[in-house]
Amino acid sequence: MLRAKDLGEWKIIDIFHKNFEEAPDLLVPFGDDVSVVDLGKDALAAIKTDMLVASTDVPPGMTDWQVGRKAVVGTISDFAAKGVEPKAVLVSLGIPAEYSKISLEALAKGVNAGAREYGAFVLGGDTNESRDLVIAVMLLGATRKGQITLRSTAKPNDIVAVTGPFGKTAAGLQCLVDKTVRIRRKLEAELLEALYMPKARLNEGLTLSKRGLTTSIIDSSDGLAWSLHELSKSSRKGFIVDKLPTTESVKEYAKMSNIKLEDLILYGGEEYELVMTVNQEKWEEAKEAIEQVGGKLIRIGRTTRERGVRYKRGHDTILIESRGWEHFKSGDQNKETLARRFR
Amino acid sequence: MLRAKDLGEWKIIDIFHKNFEEAPDLLVPFGDDVSVVDLGKDALAAIKTDMLVASTDVPPGMTDWQVGRKAVVGTISDFAAKGVEPKAVLVSLGIPAEYSKISLEALAKGVNAGAREYGAFVLGGDTNESRDLVIAVMLLGATRKGQITLRSTAKPNDIVAVTGPFGKTAAGLQCLVDKTVRIRRKLEAELLEALYMPKARLNEGLTLSKRGLTTSIIDSSDGLAWSLHELSKSSRKGFIVDKLPTTESVKEYAKMSNIKLEDLILYGGEEYELVMTVNQEKWEEAKEAIEQVGGKLIRIGRTTRERGVRYKRGHDTILIESRGWEHFKSGDQNKETLARRFR
Repeated sequence: MLRAKDLGEWKIIDIFHKNFEEAPDLLVPFGDDVSVVDLGKDALAAIKTDMLVASTDVPPGMTDWQVGRKAVVGTISDFAAKGVEPKAVLVSLGIPAEYSKISLEALAKGVNAGAREYGAFVLGGDTNESRDLVIAVMLLGATRKGQITLRSTAKPNDIVAVTGPFGKTAAGLQCLVDKTVRIRRKLEAELLEALYMPKARLNEGLTLSKRGLTTSIIDSSDGLAWSLHELSKSSRKGFIVDKLPTTESVKEYAKMSNIKLEDLILYGGEEYELVMTVNQEKWEEAKEAIEQVGGKLIRIGRTTRERGVRYKRGHDTILIESRGWEHFKSGDQNKETLARRFR
Repeated sequence: MLRAKDLGEWKIIDIFHKNFEEAPDLLVPFGDDVSVVDLGKDALAAIKTDMLVASTDVPPGMTDWQVGRKAVVGTISDFAAKGVEPKAVLVSLGIPAEYSKISLEALAKGVNAGAREYGAFVLGGDTNESRDLVIAVMLLGATRKGQITLRSTAKPNDIVAVTGPFGKTAAGLQCLVDKTVRIRRKLEAELLEALYMPKARLNEGLTLSKRGLTTSIIDSSDGLAWSLHELSKSSRKGFIVDKLPTTESVKEYAKMSNIKLEDLILYGGEEYELVMTVNQEKWEEAKEAIEQVGGKLIRIGRTTRERGVRYKRGHDTILIESRGWEHFKSGDQNKETLARRFR
């Protein structure tokens, strides 16, 4: 008999999708970063839910405050991708019986901080007893017709761009998992900061959306490779990447450890940059608009008519695999990339 | 050091409430059945989240389909209380690695059935690996200014009413826990049906709300006693109950077991009737309106200026205690009433 662990996350999602009757007036397809509902009077509500489970999603050394904050910030990243301002947060908690009052207070403050950092308020929730610490976050915001750019509308010869470097989170996780790699304290601190204190690119996402600057967009919480494949698959276009943006710290960590730099950049996940396609004619405008709100836009390649996601490095062209972190898949491909499980 | 199990659910909620910065334009107070957010253009969104944790919330014998359905129906009951039509459902799942594909399919169909039964569609969600089966449901619906009746606005000399009998769920649970009580198969089937296939009083709630027929209202998922106390506390009024509506099946079960009938009716929980106060002048209109949508309204008492929730039985008046099922409190008062834990 097939079990959840044999199926893996994507097949499980598929089972759910197949068994959910599709709403007739679906404004955003099932599986995109947010769902949109017409409330009448031209008012559209955007909603999103995301669950954090401590035993699989929380790296060692993360404080309760950071756990609460991250549960919210990770969800806000999906709103950032679709250019929706978060207004309200609801939080459903499963709490172990042994969890301390001090931890509860820190967790609550963290949830509040995650919301307030992006202008939202926590309006309510639900608490339950459970074996794992589980935080299900729900976000609500207002949107308008035409405001949301989907994953499925990339065009040929668009510029592929991202809002920041990749690989820090993966390197930070690896620091925690493999203690045999000896690195400078300052380097470790920088990598762990990325892991413990993720930022959502809300200002960037709101700016891009308001000015209609992208042709397709997604958040990168499942890894850069996975996000590129998701845009490529949804849009039925190919991608050629010729630059993998990262930081000196990630390069240094790759040198010290036995992990290929490309793997840290491509297959990490739990980092919250935006990955998008931009029409060439809008590129300069998009770059400037993002710089005006204190962010940056990095060109990493272009779209093609032929499918597939490739990385062109000098004269070599290699395929970028369609993988990232997948829940339930602890036994197979996840292990090959990075040990992101801390049981 | 204080732990979650020492604090109990209400003190934990209090910790969260204290640490969440309050939104300046709060339309419905923290802790009421739903939260309401102004999306602009006169459009108000109502949202609600509820979590079901299998190890504490699912009685033995419940099918996966029923578990999925119940997770949604329990949340819809809160929308029913506030007269909001559910439009969209999001569902965040924590799934044990050993959970089977067949169970996943049944669960998905159950979630969909719970939504469709009340006119809503499941638009998306999130799946994660966790030790418990955890289902966090988020609901969204549209509402209007003035549509929502709060818990806090009961008036003196209002009629206290409910939409149906109480005690079946508690008796059904007790059937499962205490196998020494021998009852007729048909009786058992009736009690278990109430437990496994709860119904939300959505039509009743929508009718009451549309016509502004109640002065305060709440759903009864934490038990009749708890709901009465919650309305009483929020409204700063007292309640005198002179009738405890139940069924012949509950009476029969109480006779066969060692449990007091009043305890089954008052302190059970997980049943989804509406508990409300109605101005005397609107009573007949409210009764007729509810009958027109196929429901019923049962008068069980009246409100008073003096605080406290009392039950008048003949010449006796006894205090109704402020208790119901409370998560984390498995050791103390919950055990005294009904064993609702199945570890």
